[in-house]
Parts: sequence; structure tokens; C-alpha cells
Amino acid sequence: MSEEVKEVKIETSGKVIQSPCGPIIHGLEDVLVKTTTISDIDGKNGILWYRGYRIDELAKYSTFEEVAYLILYGKLPNRKELEDFKALLASYRDLPSEVYSVVTTLGKVKAHPMLVLEAGVAALGAFDENPNDYSKEANLRRAIKLTSALPIMMAAHYRASRGLDLVKPRKDLSHAANFLYMMFGKEPDETSTKAIDLYLVLHIDHEVPASTFATLVAISTWTDLYSAIAAGIATLKGPLHGGANEAAMKQYLEIGKPESARPYVEKLLAEGKRLMGVGHRVYKAYDPRARIYKELVKQLSEAKGDMTWYRIAEEVEKVVLEKLAPKKLYPNIDFWSGIAMYLLGIPYEYYTPIFAMSRVVGWSAHAIEYLDQHRLFRPRACYTGPHDVPYIPIDKR
Amino acid sequence: MSEEVKEVKIETSGKVIQSPCGPIIHGLEDVLVKTTTISDIDGKNGILWYRGYRIDELAKYSTFEEVAYLILYGKLPNRKELEDFKALLASYRDLPSEVYSVVTTLGKVKAHPMLVLEAGVAALGAFDENPNDYSKEANLRRAIKLTSALPIMMAAHYRASRGLDLVKPRKDLSHAANFLYMMFGKEPDETSTKAIDLYLVLHIDHEVPASTFATLVAISTWTDLYSAIAAGIATLKGPLHGGANEAAMKQYLEIGKPESARPYVEKLLAEGKRLMGVGHRVYKAYDPRARIYKELVKQLSEAKGDMTWYRIAEEVEKVVLEKLAPKKLYPNIDFWSGIAMYLLGIPYEYYTPIFAMSRVVGWSAHAIEYLDQHRLFRPRACYTGPHDVPYIPIDKR
Repeated sequence: MSEEVKEVKIETSGKVIQSPCGPIIHGLEDVLVKTTTISDIDGKNGILWYRGYRIDELAKYSTFEEVAYLILYGKLPNRKELEDFKALLASYRDLPSEVYSVVTTLGKVKAHPMLVLEAGVAALGAFDENPNDYSKEANLRRAIKLTSALPIMMAAHYRASRGLDLVKPRKDLSHAANFLYMMFGKEPDETSTKAIDLYLVLHIDHEVPASTFATLVAISTWTDLYSAIAAGIATLKGPLHGGANEAAMKQYLEIGKPESARPYVEKLLAEGKRLMGVGHRVYKAYDPRARIYKELVKQLSEAKGDMTWYRIAEEVEKVVLEKLAPKKLYPNIDFWSGIAMYLLGIPYEYYTPIFAMSRVVGWSAHAIEYLDQHRLFRPRACYTGPHDVPYIPIDKR
Repeated sequence: MSEEVKEVKIETSGKVIQSPCGPIIHGLEDVLVKTTTISDIDGKNGILWYRGYRIDELAKYSTFEEVAYLILYGKLPNRKELEDFKALLASYRDLPSEVYSVVTTLGKVKAHPMLVLEAGVAALGAFDENPNDYSKEANLRRAIKLTSALPIMMAAHYRASRGLDLVKPRKDLSHAANFLYMMFGKEPDETSTKAIDLYLVLHIDHEVPASTFATLVAISTWTDLYSAIAAGIATLKGPLHGGANEAAMKQYLEIGKPESARPYVEKLLAEGKRLMGVGHRVYKAYDPRARIYKELVKQLSEAKGDMTWYRIAEEVEKVVLEKLAPKKLYPNIDFWSGIAMYLLGIPYEYYTPIFAMSRVVGWSAHAIEYLDQHRLFRPRACYTGPHDVPYIPIDKR
């Protein structure tokens, strides 16, 4: 401890563990680690802003490309800026053959696609034109390159793991449409594209969840952006972070039909078990993203001619609003998004990679923002073991 | 904020920024994030313990294998336990051909070896026998496998990047000797092996620096251990974390001869520039690892018949102890370790990977320990931008 120890009071709603060294703020709940102008959450009232804009308006009027521009550059683009940005994204729709090789080699052995994204992003880092350029401009360029790269890697993995030929990216399609095109080899219909596009808009940033925080911890050492994003992907892979929409969808499949929803949920709750896609560490109200995406899921279900899962989710939602809302547990985005992925024919293991495909923008923006208010993250642990244990030679142990 | 907001007082010696939302503890300095029984640092007095044993005794009497066992299992092994552990490490001295392929593909394009370790570790994750087994036993097995894998990846990268044939690992050599053997294709002499072995012992754990913290943030989502270690590697890659011994060695090369050391350092300090390998976020005394490794560097220099760099460093050290010690800035381990790497003929870009090769044990032990006191890391950011910015249609922007 230096002599200039300051006492700081922080407020936390989480668990605080008293240790011999002082309070341990479990999970860093409510601890402020940086300032930001990227996104803000009003958890109590269920409001989400990107760069000050309400998510509802952006979801209604803007595409993923527009919102990505907003997140990265801090303002909505005019027509020219948007066209230039789309052209830049499209210009990065290609991977060095060695990166393709890494992705398809691992695809063929059916590696988890999140592991493949980690490996692919690190591999892409090897091809940076100027790795020693730490400027904001260079990092923005990397962010855009990574944003273009992730869907290519995912589609390459999908096709390689199924013994299918790769589908070359197309530069004339939107980000969302190109992704579905590379996955399935045909141009997607408008509602399917919209389902991906809106999903991407709604997941692009969310303040500092664990994956964004891991990206910040990494970049705080002045590591390269590729590595910092790889750390974000590695963290998002955990089932407590990504993966909830898959779990929610699997519950709907288990329920099977709308009439079985209520008894299923009531039994689950009576047994003290967890309902997937419900409750959120920050939202203590209906997740605004869930409200928006619910409508999309309805439209997509109609377009696909399969209302079963939407109706099941609606029935589950009724019970949630009755029984769990008083405990401030509401449906979150994962409650609805799994249904869209399922209707689009996307295999489960790609649900979280699609999350990454959107959040890569927010991770990058936060990393770039943190470099301006930079300080190496170096917390402490409280040591609770013995000291000066006598060393006993190996033959006397 | 929930209703049960608690006020917590923490003491920090670092910078605290007052924000509209409350105090931001810059870099989480002095914030306790977990308890641990793995290692402890007395920064004021320059003492480091692993599992309660003083680093000095372990450095004197134990090999890397013994200390790795200590870190992972919490106790020093007896003869039988150590032999079994060494056999287990040796049994993992092999990589799936696809992982070799990822590493050599990237080696051939001269990717930074830390990026390659990130990719290689993620790739190795694809070959886990039972990825859904989150038990402590399974994670310990993974930790041992990763410990064996990193030097193989590094050597494969080194040789592929130089167009050399790979050297197959040998199961009869120690961890340190096998590493040098795979790198250079011949059995190393005893002092060289000792230089690597002692380096590995001294770097195996160090409480919660940024890379360990990134591993913890990742594992807090219940991601897999491979991904969490990839996050650690991605974070260690940053020049503020790994890389200082390279920078220190480059300073000695610039100095060129012992007589130039004093004027060089005095000029540097007069210009307000930073001397590499000096000062530490936690140690405000002589880094105990540096004290130990200095002796080794002396022996190695004698064995290699090149005392120049040791003598230069000694001269630099004199100025540091005169001029910087009063400000609590002392030589740290990086001050000395770069010289050993240089004398061993290890290219600069592998200095940080060798750090990772040791720290993988500590990262794993901390991840496994954290899963028992588990809580998802989810701090907050303070939003300082506007709210409810009116949405303007694109053609009116």
C-alpha cells in the first residue's frame, strides 16, 4: 500500500463478502470501471439508449450498418457517410487464405464455433497491415474489418463442418443478407434478412457485461484489438452470458404445444427451477429489446407459417408476467430471439456466434473509448492461506 | 438499482475519478475481486509466497514441475506424486494434427506468436474429451494439458516461421529441457535448462494481474478453460503486461557497454523518460523474483562466456538504487530476465510466450479457484452522454 490511500464509498446492490483484507464486491456488481458515451441502460424503467438514441427508434428506422456507424463514430451517418461505410464493410468481405484454412480445419473436426471465432480472430490479427499503429483510426479500421470477418468465419465453419462447399461472400448484399447467403447458399427473403438485421441492431452494445469487460481488461494492457476481441468472444462463450436464447428455445421445444406451457412453467417454478430467458442482472423491468423483438418473431412466424413457438412463448410470458414480474423478473431478449434463430434454420451452436457478430461492434467501441481513459486493470485478491510454511525436502514429505 | 443497496467503503491507493454516477476506481486499483490461497504478495517488503511457501525456498529447491503441482493441487508433492505428475505432463506432449496445422499455418506467415498461442489454445479446446464436464478434476486435467501444449506450440511456431522442420517433443526430458530441445533441436546444457526452469518457477503465479483477471472474467461466465486461458494470453500480449523484459534487454543493447550505463540512465531520467524493468504496480521494494533471477543471470552469463549484459544491468541497477529507490522504484524481474532469454538465443517475440508458458498454471489455478466462489463479473460504466436525442431521418442529416 502506498501512503496516499484514499477511502472510497461505493454503493452496491450485490453481495459483499467481508474478508480479512476488506470488502470483496462479488462480481463487481455496481462498481464503475469507466465512463462511456456508447450506451446506457435504465434498468428500472427498461430503457436502452445507443449514443443517446432510444433503441426503439433505431430498431424502427435504422439498419445494422447505420447503427454500427453510430456506435463506432458517435453519430448517425448521412446518406454519403452510410454508403461509404457500407462500401468499406463490403471491401473487407474476404479473408486471407490462411485464416480460411484455420477456420475450415477446425470446422471439419466440428470444433465449437465460438472456439473457432477465437482462433479465427487471433489468426486475422496476423494480417494487420500495421500492428504497431495504435491510433483510433487504425482501431476503427480493425473494428470494421472484424465486423466483416465474423460472419464469413461463421459461415465457413458451418459449411466446412457439414462437408459443404464454401459460399463466397457477396459485396452487393447487406451485412445481414450476406450472412444468410453465405450460410445457406441462397439469397434470403426479406423477413429473414430483417430478423437477422434487427437481432444485430438489438445486440450491438449493452454497456459493460462480462464479455465487454474482458475486452476492456485485455485492451488495458495495450494488447492489439484482435486479441481484445478474442478475449470478448472467449467470455461470451460461457453459458451464463451467451447461450440463453438456445436454452429458452429448447424449453419451448420441450413444452411442445401452447396448451402445455402453463402447467410446464408452473411445475418448473414449484420445483424452484429456472425459466430460461427470464430476468436480467440490470433490467428489473421488461427488457426493451425483448419488447421490440417479440413483434419481429411474430412476423417471422407468420412468414414461415409456423406460429407454434411464438404461441408457446406467449403462453409462457403470461405466467411470467403473473408470477415473476412481482419479483422484477421479466422476459429478456433471449426469451424471444431463440425462436427467430430456430425458424431461420440456424443450428443451436451458432446462436451465440450471431450474438458475437453484432457485439463485436460494441466491444470495439468500448476498447477504443477505454484507450482514451486508459488505466491498466490490476485489482487485488485477498489471500486467506498460511504464510511462511516450512519447506520440507521431497523425500521427507 | 435494487432496493437493497449497500454502501461499501474501500481503500485505494490509485486514482479515483468522480463521475455523475459515483466514484470510478481507475484500473480497479486495490479493489478486491476474490479470495485466494494460491499466491500472496507483500509489496511493501518485497515478499512473494506460493501456497504459503516463500518463493526463495521454492526457487532454491524445487523444479517447475514441483511448483506447478503445488500451485494446482495446493501442496508440494511427495516423490511418487511428483513422478506421476511428470508422467502426466509428458503424456500430453503431443498436439492433434489440426492444432499443429493451425500453428504452423500461422507460423509460416510470421504471425506474432502470442496470437498463435491464442489461436492454438482455442483450437486445442475443440479436442477436449468431454467439454461439458465442468468438474475441478476435468479442469485440472485441462490445465496440465495446456501446460504441456504451450511450449509445443511455441516451438512449432518458431520452427515453421523459419522454414525449419518441427522437432518432436521428447517425453524423457524435463518441461524446461524439452522446450529448449524442441526449439533448437539439441539437448540443452544444464545451465540453460536451469535458466528456463527458474524463469518458469518465478512466473507461475502473481495474484491478480490483468491477464489473470481477464481469465477470471471469462471463466465467470462458465466458459471453458481453453477460452479463459486464451483470454489470459490475449491480455498478456499487451506491452504494458508482458514485453517489459524485451524492452529492458533492448535498452542494454542500446547502452552497449558497462561504462555507458550511468550516463545513459542519467540522461533518460533527466528527460523524464522511462527506464524499462523498473517499478511495479504492487512491489514498492526490490522484486523478490528479480533478486533470485539476478543470480541465475550471473551464472548463465559466466557459462555462456558473455558478461557484458549482466555488467551493464548491474551498472544500471546502481543508478536505480541511488536515484529511483527513494521513490520506491526498484528493479523488477523483467530487469534481469531479458538477459537470460537473450543469452539463450531466444528471439524477442518469444519472451512473452515463455511468460505465458509459465503463467498458464496460475491462470488455470485461479480460474478453478474462482469457479468455487463464482459470481459473474458485471461491473457498470457511467454514462456521460445525452439522452433521448431526437431521431432525424437519414435524408435530413
